[in-house]
Amino acid sequence: MPEPLTSHLAAPATTSRRERVVALMRAAQARLTAAFEALDGQATFRPHTWERPGGGGGTAKVLEGGRVLERGGINVSAVCGDAVPPSLAATHPGTEGKPFFATGLSMVLHPLNPYAPAFHANYRYFEVTEVSSRGHEIAPRVWWFGGGADMTPNYPFEEDVIHFHRTLKAQCDRHDVGDYETLKRACDDYFFIRHRGEMRGVGGIFFDELSPIGQGDFERDFAFVADGLDTILEAYLPLLARRHATPYGERERRWQLLRRGRYVEFNLVYDRGTLFGLQTGGNIEAILMSMPPFAHWAFDYAPEPGSPEAAMLAFLQPRDWASAGSERLP
Amino acid sequence: MPEPLTSHLAAPATTSRRERVVALMRAAQARLTAAFEALDGQATFRPHTWERPGGGGGTAKVLEGGRVLERGGINVSAVCGDAVPPSLAATHPGTEGKPFFATGLSMVLHPLNPYAPAFHANYRYFEVTEVSSRGHEIAPRVWWFGGGADMTPNYPFEEDVIHFHRTLKAQCDRHDVGDYETLKRACDDYFFIRHRGEMRGVGGIFFDELSPIGQGDFERDFAFVADGLDTILEAYLPLLARRHATPYGERERRWQLLRRGRYVEFNLVYDRGTLFGLQTGGNIEAILMSMPPFAHWAFDYAPEPGSPEAAMLAFLQPRDWASAGSERLP
Repeated sequence: MPEPLTSHLAAPATTSRRERVVALMRAAQARLTAAFEALDGQATFRPHTWERPGGGGGTAKVLEGGRVLERGGINVSAVCGDAVPPSLAATHPGTEGKPFFATGLSMVLHPLNPYAPAFHANYRYFEVTEVSSRGHEIAPRVWWFGGGADMTPNYPFEEDVIHFHRTLKAQCDRHDVGDYETLKRACDDYFFIRHRGEMRGVGGIFFDELSPIGQGDFERDFAFVADGLDTILEAYLPLLARRHATPYGERERRWQLLRRGRYVEFNLVYDRGTLFGLQTGGNIEAILMSMPPFAHWAFDYAPEPGSPEAAMLAFLQPRDWASAGSERLP
Repeated sequence: MPEPLTSHLAAPATTSRRERVVALMRAAQARLTAAFEALDGQATFRPHTWERPGGGGGTAKVLEGGRVLERGGINVSAVCGDAVPPSLAATHPGTEGKPFFATGLSMVLHPLNPYAPAFHANYRYFEVTEVSSRGHEIAPRVWWFGGGADMTPNYPFEEDVIHFHRTLKAQCDRHDVGDYETLKRACDDYFFIRHRGEMRGVGGIFFDELSPIGQGDFERDFAFVADGLDTILEAYLPLLARRHATPYGERERRWQLLRRGRYVEFNLVYDRGTLFGLQTGGNIEAILMSMPPFAHWAFDYAPEPGSPEAAMLAFLQPRDWASAGSERLP
């Protein structure tokens, strides 16, 4: 096993908070790309470095045409700016027009096999920059962590969803911040395709602010996020490993592409991060890394009653997965 | 040739405006489905009737898996409501909260062959319902026509685009309303994918209000719209007929699906009609009839310099097509 990301918790006292968070995000990116490349065994993540005209930039690592992953991207960015954008300030009072720094890791994986679930995670840190009277940056009073992880299967494997949610619950239970029930509910609410009346997937955890602004404990919150990044592999990799070689045909492929059409609908119509990025001139390719490689639309398509595809639809409503049934992991 | 739609211009004096417009839209739908079915020769448009909970409904006619058309839909709706929705009232002052009636024809055709252009048109009539002191509906003072037609090719056939624009210009030139230059510019402005800095296609004509509210002449404006619906076949059908059997391979198909990804991006991120429909609980399948059957995204894809695909990108910026080159129609 690689060194856990929680090793970043102990940092030299001379390192700033933002440096520690950036180092964590980069270490997580390296760890995650290595693990998914090892499973894929064929394709590799290629780095695409981009700069933001307003300040900062990032590196998107993108894999396409793999044996296991049809398309996947893991992007780490660290950007700064003179003024918090109005749309962000609206949801985070007290930040209007102030200089800011933001860093984060965002990832989306679209497996080739229709039986393997797609995965999304995003962990981010935001701070309003404060400068002392002598011109030195000082520890900011306004900062927060946001993030979450969620899964989008095409087929209803109860044991997969239970494993995923239990693993995230265990992560939450290890900390004094980040209540699983609250974060799970926020995820169900957020990844909801209103015009379809269905969730994008089976949820996970989601938080806009891990601790409300002004109430955070940096070390405690940082530890939760480091653990969240560590937990991605434990929550998702076994499921991808278990499903990626399942035999399938045209029927399953078509269903997968239809479900990916819904994924596109959510991301382009509702996803705040996507719309914020498109509206503020972010790096288009890094933002739209989340798009599936192929998607399909068909008029008024409804799966045959009693089929696994029809059963999947029942998974797209909120359920208490962590307490459900018995996990049948081998 | 079928009877031209302009035959609807002469109507019995006892028929209300809205009845005449609805009859025109239905006749146009029948004429268009028949013409495209005849060209396809394999698949037919299947009707899907839907009702709007708030009042009215429509019939979407949808063709999928054809020889010429991979997916196409022609929807006619006629709806009424107690109060003009706020988002519509914002752009049409004086309509706030009043009862309304709206009817329209909306169509999108996605050909199978990558060398054949996709097509979109929409013609609509809107009126604020006014009732006399004796409870009879009277000719409304607030009403307008909106609409337009535009084309989205994947390959740069100059003669096709010139034919398309010249045909629309001739339509405009036949009337005392609807200036081609103005409507062409509005189309270029509207079908613009801001985050990509490129147009969705090669444009056409577009108008929110053919005559500003209070300045319209119903017979004149109705004649323009009837002619617009008549002109669809003349503008587009010869191009589809000319290109649908061109041999192509994986390369052209992939490029087509990438371009369709852009089509999806425009429709879900910017198209006012789509977003209005999704937000107001319209019929989802009729609204998303515009989605292509298949779409593709690839990271940072750029066509080879000097290729036809690269040349296509130069077509996605505003150009004076109606005055360009010489048309080489056979």
